[in-house]
Amino acid sequence: MADIDDSEAERHRAKMAKRKAVQDAEVAQKTIEKGLLIVNTGPGKGKTTAAFGLALRMLGYGRRVGVVQFIKGKWHTGEKDAFKAFGDQLVWYSMGEGFTWETQDLKRDIAAAEAAWVRVEELMADPSISLLVLDELNIALRYDYLDLDRVVAALKGRREDLHVVVTGRNAKPALTEAADLVTEMGATKHHFSAGVKAQQGIEF
Amino acid sequence: MADIDDSEAERHRAKMAKRKAVQDAEVAQKTIEKGLLIVNTGPGKGKTTAAFGLALRMLGYGRRVGVVQFIKGKWHTGEKDAFKAFGDQLVWYSMGEGFTWETQDLKRDIAAAEAAWVRVEELMADPSISLLVLDELNIALRYDYLDLDRVVAALKGRREDLHVVVTGRNAKPALTEAADLVTEMGATKHHFSAGVKAQQGIEF
Repeated sequence: MADIDDSEAERHRAKMAKRKAVQDAEVAQKTIEKGLLIVNTGPGKGKTTAAFGLALRMLGYGRRVGVVQFIKGKWHTGEKDAFKAFGDQLVWYSMGEGFTWETQDLKRDIAAAEAAWVRVEELMADPSISLLVLDELNIALRYDYLDLDRVVAALKGRREDLHVVVTGRNAKPALTEAADLVTEMGATKHHFSAGVKAQQGIEF
Repeated sequence: MADIDDSEAERHRAKMAKRKAVQDAEVAQKTIEKGLLIVNTGPGKGKTTAAFGLALRMLGYGRRVGVVQFIKGKWHTGEKDAFKAFGDQLVWYSMGEGFTWETQDLKRDIAAAEAAWVRVEELMADPSISLLVLDELNIALRYDYLDLDRVVAALKGRREDLHVVVTGRNAKPALTEAADLVTEMGATKHHFSAGVKAQQGIEF
């Protein structure tokens, strides 16, 4: 990089000092601690991956995490193996039977979603769990495998200190209204469009 | 859920069989394998978290991952502890001196970014690394701590099988043009606006 002269350095310092004052004032206003209902949705990548990143962060603090996968695909086997390093800090249930277009069996999909929901209720009642990842729950809700009102009521009624992350495209408005944090992953550019296949460590 | 009658089940099956045919045809067209240049940008949450989720997936396959953090904040300590479980599968460098509005020192920020880039070049040259996470590189580029052309040229010239993830807001167009996968994390709803503070296991 080019040399920085003193006036440029001073302009930078003054700008950043101003920015820090704004930042500090904003932080000071935030005093509430609570278990968050987080929704990762949208057509882009990273919905489940970010949820597992959060799980990793929690595990790093020695806290316990529950994962319930509503739609089991060929995906996520990499992180499933990786999570084994954390022993019983992590409780993992893969309840789905595959993508809905793989099973093509509505009754079986509904039964799998209902069985997954039983696990969710168990984990929500377990005070040792700090974070619950409900992977692809949005898909189960989108296809009406589970009753939306019942699911939203249960999530709203969660323990005060329980964080829950729901993933999947097309999150229902009733769910995003109840959520504290909604992130829409947008696919600005995708390598699948350029003929690149799903690869180990990236997509699964 | 209500009972599913046979005609409804059949409609579902037919719809999903059609969807599967489309899906299978799409997958069959994708044959290229290559190291991807991935950019996680946008104002929403999950840019770094998703990158670390990818790292976790790679680690689960026994592959090696390098992380270079360009802007070191108070963040990410949870996953840093968690990653210790993977020993020398992970190489981690936190090179930044803090957020630019914390240091307020342009020369120091530039020196830190340059030192970080030296580490990146070392890791790019190491054939045992499958994935490289360049955390908050977009911030270093945004403030011109590093020369954009040089960085983009180096990333384009990476080994064929090396995946690289760049995170941070305001990704430069030259970088997204060179990327295979760009995801824009959009902040649809954020709990900070409701006065909730940064919490252990969620933000850091």
